[in-house]
Amino acid sequence: MPESVEVPSPMRQMGYDRAIAVFSPEGRMYQVEYARKAVEKATTTLGITFAGGIILVAAKTLQKLLVPESVEKISKIDDHIVIGSCGILADARTLVDFARVRAQVNKMTFDEPIETYALVKDIADRVQRFTQIGGIRPYGAGFLIGGVNGSARLFETDPSGTIREWRAHAIGRGAKDARKILIEEYKEGMVKEKALDLAIRALKEGEKKISTRSVDIAIIEKKIKVYNAAEKKEILKKYI
Amino acid sequence: MPESVEVPSPMRQMGYDRAIAVFSPEGRMYQVEYARKAVEKATTTLGITFAGGIILVAAKTLQKLLVPESVEKISKIDDHIVIGSCGILADARTLVDFARVRAQVNKMTFDEPIETYALVKDIADRVQRFTQIGGIRPYGAGFLIGGVNGSARLFETDPSGTIREWRAHAIGRGAKDARKILIEEYKEGMVKEKALDLAIRALKEGEKKISTRSVDIAIIEKKIKVYNAAEKKEILKKYI
Amino acid sequence: MPESVEVPSPMRQMGYDRAIAVFSPEGRMYQVEYARKAVEKATTTLGITFAGGIILVAAKTLQKLLVPESVEKISKIDDHIVIGSCGILADARTLVDFARVRAQVNKMTFDEPIETYALVKDIADRVQRFTQIGGIRPYGAGFLIGGVNGSARLFETDPSGTIREWRAHAIGRGAKDARKILIEEYKEGMVKEKALDLAIRALKEGEKKISTRSVDIAIIEKKIKVYNAAEKKEILKKYI
Amino acid sequence: MPESVEVPSPMRQMGYDRAIAVFSPEGRMYQVEYARKAVEKATTTLGITFAGGIILVAAKTLQKLLVPESVEKISKIDDHIVIGSCGILADARTLVDFARVRAQVNKMTFDEPIETYALVKDIADRVQRFTQIGGIRPYGAGFLIGGVNGSARLFETDPSGTIREWRAHAIGRGAKDARKILIEEYKEGMVKEKALDLAIRALKEGEKKISTRSVDIAIIEKKIKVYNAAEKKEILKKYI
Amino acid sequence: MPESVEVPSPMRQMGYDRAIAVFSPEGRMYQVEYARKAVEKATTTLGITFAGGIILVAAKTLQKLLVPESVEKISKIDDHIVIGSCGILADARTLVDFARVRAQVNKMTFDEPIETYALVKDIADRVQRFTQIGGIRPYGAGFLIGGVNGSARLFETDPSGTIREWRAHAIGRGAKDARKILIEEYKEGMVKEKALDLAIRALKEGEKKISTRSVDIAIIEKKIKVYNAAEKKEILKKYI
Amino acid sequence: MPESVEVPSPMRQMGYDRAIAVFSPEGRMYQVEYARKAVEKATTTLGITFAGGIILVAAKTLQKLLVPESVEKISKIDDHIVIGSCGILADARTLVDFARVRAQVNKMTFDEPIETYALVKDIADRVQRFTQIGGIRPYGAGFLIGGVNGSARLFETDPSGTIREWRAHAIGRGAKDARKILIEEYKEGMVKEKALDLAIRALKEGEKKISTRSVDIAIIEKKIKVYNAAEKKEILKKYI
Amino acid sequence: MPESVEVPSPMRQMGYDRAIAVFSPEGRMYQVEYARKAVEKATTTLGITFAGGIILVAAKTLQKLLVPESVEKISKIDDHIVIGSCGILADARTLVDFARVRAQVNKMTFDEPIETYALVKDIADRVQRFTQIGGIRPYGAGFLIGGVNGSARLFETDPSGTIREWRAHAIGRGAKDARKILIEEYKEGMVKEKALDLAIRALKEGEKKISTRSVDIAIIEKKIKVYNAAEKKEILKKYI
Repeated sequence: MPESVEVPSPMRQMGYDRAIAVFSPEGRMYQVEYARKAVEKATTTLGITFAGGIILVAAKTLQKLLVPESVEKISKIDDHIVIGSCGILADARTLVDFARVRAQVNKMTFDEPIETYALVKDIADRVQRFTQIGGIRPYGAGFLIGGVNGSARLFETDPSGTIREWRAHAIGRGAKDARKILIEEYKEGMVKEKALDLAIRALKEGEKKISTRSVDIAIIEKKIKVYNAAEKKEILKKYI
Repeated sequence: MPESVEVPSPMRQMGYDRAIAVFSPEGRMYQVEYARKAVEKATTTLGITFAGGIILVAAKTLQKLLVPESVEKISKIDDHIVIGSCGILADARTLVDFARVRAQVNKMTFDEPIETYALVKDIADRVQRFTQIGGIRPYGAGFLIGGVNGSARLFETDPSGTIREWRAHAIGRGAKDARKILIEEYKEGMVKEKALDLAIRALKEGEKKISTRSVDIAIIEKKIKVYNAAEKKEILKKYI
Repeated sequence: MPESVEVPSPMRQMGYDRAIAVFSPEGRMYQVEYARKAVEKATTTLGITFAGGIILVAAKTLQKLLVPESVEKISKIDDHIVIGSCGILADARTLVDFARVRAQVNKMTFDEPIETYALVKDIADRVQRFTQIGGIRPYGAGFLIGGVNGSARLFETDPSGTIREWRAHAIGRGAKDARKILIEEYKEGMVKEKALDLAIRALKEGEKKISTRSVDIAIIEKKIKVYNAAEKKEILKKYI
Repeated sequence: MPESVEVPSPMRQMGYDRAIAVFSPEGRMYQVEYARKAVEKATTTLGITFAGGIILVAAKTLQKLLVPESVEKISKIDDHIVIGSCGILADARTLVDFARVRAQVNKMTFDEPIETYALVKDIADRVQRFTQIGGIRPYGAGFLIGGVNGSARLFETDPSGTIREWRAHAIGRGAKDARKILIEEYKEGMVKEKALDLAIRALKEGEKKISTRSVDIAIIEKKIKVYNAAEKKEILKKYI
Repeated sequence: MPESVEVPSPMRQMGYDRAIAVFSPEGRMYQVEYARKAVEKATTTLGITFAGGIILVAAKTLQKLLVPESVEKISKIDDHIVIGSCGILADARTLVDFARVRAQVNKMTFDEPIETYALVKDIADRVQRFTQIGGIRPYGAGFLIGGVNGSARLFETDPSGTIREWRAHAIGRGAKDARKILIEEYKEGMVKEKALDLAIRALKEGEKKISTRSVDIAIIEKKIKVYNAAEKKEILKKYI
Repeated sequence: MPESVEVPSPMRQMGYDRAIAVFSPEGRMYQVEYARKAVEKATTTLGITFAGGIILVAAKTLQKLLVPESVEKISKIDDHIVIGSCGILADARTLVDFARVRAQVNKMTFDEPIETYALVKDIADRVQRFTQIGGIRPYGAGFLIGGVNGSARLFETDPSGTIREWRAHAIGRGAKDARKILIEEYKEGMVKEKALDLAIRALKEGEKKISTRSVDIAIIEKKIKVYNAAEKKEILKKYI
Repeated sequence: MPESVEVPSPMRQMGYDRAIAVFSPEGRMYQVEYARKAVEKATTTLGITFAGGIILVAAKTLQKLLVPESVEKISKIDDHIVIGSCGILADARTLVDFARVRAQVNKMTFDEPIETYALVKDIADRVQRFTQIGGIRPYGAGFLIGGVNGSARLFETDPSGTIREWRAHAIGRGAKDARKILIEEYKEGMVKEKALDLAIRALKEGEKKISTRSVDIAIIEKKIKVYNAAEKKEILKKYI
């Protein structure tokens, strides 16, 4: 006979994850960790630094009849900064818009392009605030942000508002597999062609099935190049 | 004998769906998904792009003695933009009004018609905000938005604030069946007559029973044409 | 022996109907549906359009010694618009007052009577807002709104903020029975006398017992006529 | 053996009556109905119209050593309006104060006494607002309001903000018994003396035990007369 | 075997007493009644009117080494008004401060002492507001307020904001026993000496053990006299 | 056999201590009583008045390598006022800062040192407000406040905002034992040396183990003297 | 057979840790203690004062491909103040930014560097406020703050807003082990070289495995020196 009413585990957590900005007894913030789940379930986004620039590649799930460009996994923020995103599409879009406005305001105010890290911090500060104040939920979006501004740097922001800088990194559902390849093969100072080859192979490892239509590619050097379908086809032909 | 009190599943979820803007442990937002249900239960709305324009068709349930025009599934926003809606009628109406005001403000401010995507983003941004801030509920409405502004484009917005662009798409209770036809038969660059034929057949597949009175039709070309009853009768006679 | 603790159905719903502006897993808003119950339990109100005008009739429960006019089921808003209401009396009264203020403001601002649909939308927009924002409850009142402004139109607003236009319609506790008669016998372009006869018979079907004292009648033509007791007696004598 | 855990009825309702401004599944507002209970438990207040005026009588429970006048069941608002109240004393007092301020403001603004119905609506509108907005509770007070302003009228307001006009009416714990007498014997156009006799007998029916000290009497004619102890004694001597 | 899970009574009430300003199904406000408990548990305070003035006496519990004057049960508000308080000390103090400010503002504005009842209503109105608005709790303090302003009057305010006027009254833990004596022996128009004798004997009945140090005495006549220790000793010597 | 599900006591209280500013059925405020617990668990603070001044002594727990002065149990507010505190360190610090600002503002505004009781009331009023308004928690800090301003006075404030004046008093974990000594041996008008001896012996009774490093001493006379380590060593050598 | 339903311990606490700023019956604030857990789980940070300065050392967990500098455990605030942090990275970053702004504002306002303790108090006051006001959560970050400003001082702030000054101290997951070494070997007035040796050995005791890449070192003397990789390698070679 039952000695006690066993409360199923989802109920036990109920106390902690309902209040928006609250710590659990272990010092964790459930809402932020749940928001991270939205990032971890999204299609893979991957960044890699090379001598003189950054490559961002991202996979996307495209339903039939969809205009592929309308699912924007890789977004140009300014002439020298690109964001690759994972997570809830609407959250990512509004946060990307926030980044664009910040970049423009900086340009108009100081008459020079925003420093990459300054923009990353603007984004992460906003994201952090959404984890600390009640009545709003955290952003369900993670970013890889590549910028060339003097040096070429690759940053990550997550739903907690943490900033990390990487040589090469992947986020989203294929991150684990993709990172395995990156860790094995990445070398600092790679040339662009090698880096692009590594990026695509790592993405393929994470996503298994990729196609010209379902992959976005951007190379951020002095100038950003976001690849069009023909160029992507040319690049991807040997991997598909 | 029971080892534990089994809490029925609706209660388990209780923790997550009561707080308005909160993530579940799986990184989902229940309130937004419930709002989507309101869209999925509504009568079908369908859009299709053709060479030079967009066709929107929508079914509606009409009780007897109702004035059919008072259930507005297809709403003209400006001379070049039309919205087809699904979901809670009052939510859709107030969001359509919001769109009209935005379009007018743009016209008055810049002395030119609003760009289709700019309007879509205005709508989606508002919708997204209603999913992130506490004390308000998400909009229970999904839109297909067709606009000719240079090119002819067809967008979808859903209760999460996501934007998608489609060649052809359907939302509402018959979306699954209607999309099957669209996917099989849609071809880019179709001529208007073929597109209209496909649109009506796909709608009929989703709704089974249609009539002149219960279907709204709009063709957005240089000029928008919303069909009157006589025209609809002429068009629909071979399908009913 | 019990396999599980069966939670009675009212408790299951508890999660959804306590938070004011929240969706249920089925995409419904319980608070709005409960507010509708307040409308469905009220005495019947009925509207019918005829060639050149609208007739509104409404039943009311009158306790002894009550001054019948103090229970206002049919309220004149302006020289060309009348509202027939169902639901919580105080909610209906304050919403009717809101409508009167709007009509007066329009007259003063544009120097012409408010368009019927414009007023209906003002009312419905306010009602919708009360379903979407937390900290306030929906209005427990439904309206039939008749206006002659160019054409004669009959609108319905419900607690969700939905607008419907009808040839003839009934709301309240006798709506189902009354509508059966209306659907069977209503014809577009009926003359006033026939329409009045149909309206009263349909109301009687919904309410079973009517009396001069417990029925309000209004005919909105170029000019509105709200019937006094003697006139009502004359009209009703053959039905009672 | 128990098939289910039976949750006692107070718990079932818990979901609905905690949130201040919320509907129950039956379309009722529990908080308003509970506030009505505060009115129904108070000592009886009764009003009656006669040819040319209104009589208000009210019983009160007086503890020993209390100064009877400090329990104000009948309150003069202006030279032509009197309020008889039931319910929570502090709520009634602050609402009576609100009425007095309104009457004075009207007098100062328009240089004439406030119309009785206008004041009644001011009160009822305030009361209704307290049932619709969160964070405040409804007023636990019901009023009988008599005013002579042209004609002599007797109104009732309750905690929902509903307004009713009566020939004669009673509220409070003895309302049911008192109304039985009123319904049987009240006649329109009664002379003052007959009306006063009926009022006191009906009050006695509701309260069983009355005394000069525990009854307040007011006659509102052109001029209001609130009776002093000696006059009350004279009037009441044959009833006690 | 149990037919149902019997929920212990404290839980049943839980629904009602947590939300600050909410009615119970019986039309009571638990928070206000709980606040009253804080008054009923405090040491007794007692007031008595006599020909030309009011006597306030109050007992207090004094721990050893405490400076007796620092526990202020009887507080002078102005030259003609004194408050005797019961309940939470900090609540009483801040409310007494509020009274003093009101009295001073009145004096400065109108150049004459505040009317006793006006001050009582200022206090009670503030207290009532704290029972109706969410987010604040009721005051846990009850007052006996004596003022000579023309006539000598003794008022009571309680945590609901109710005002009562008394010939003689007691509040606090000994109120029941003290009032028994007052009811038996009080006579209107007593001379001061008899009234003081009665007041002290009634207080003693309520508190059993009194001492010069633990009793405060104030006599409000044209001028207020708050007794010092020597005077209190003289007065109390025959009672202790 | 169980007739009912016995809910463990912590749950029973749950209803009352979660809402910040709410009464329990017994008229207590749990949150305030819990805040008092934070005071009762802190190291002992003790005050004693003597002819012409006040002595404050306080023990503190010092971890190794800690700079003892950084745990401020005795804080100078102005040239004539000192606060000894118990409870949550951060709460005490911010409240001490509040006191310092008040003292400075008074000096700048009136060009004279703040009266001790005025400052005490400023502190206690702020503390009381934090017990009555929702959305903030009470201060978890209790103070002994000594001031020489004309006379030498010793006040206590607790988390409810109550003010008490003492000849000699102790708060914190050793209060009970320390007060026993104080009550036995304290005499009004003691000379400073005797008072200091008593203060330290009483503190030692409450804390058992004291050391030069873990005890703070302040003597408030015309001028305040807070003892440095050498002086404390000299004083304490015979007690340790 | 069960005498009572035993509620598992996580549920018992539920009442206290959900409401953001609430005391438990023991006078503790769970949310603050949970925030402390976030500090206690972070990699170790350690500070030590020596003759003329402070040394801060900190370990960090570095995933592969991460740019080590992007995980900032030791942050320069001004030319004379450095913060070593533990806890949630995003919280620490935003609080460090707050500190930098404060330091700059002070410099611009008073034209001199901010006093170390003044900055520490600014930080701790902000942190304390986040524990007392509802709707925001405490900061999940603890700091060791070293400043040379006249004297060299080492402060700690924790999530409650408490300030402590230390000769030497460690926070984070290795604090217990590291402090054991510090307590045994630390001597006031150590020379820099000895202090650095002790700091690194104590850190190693807490973290077991350290490397040039995973350790940050800063020495704050007249001028701050944050060590670069080559310098760190030189210093750490004998410990790794």
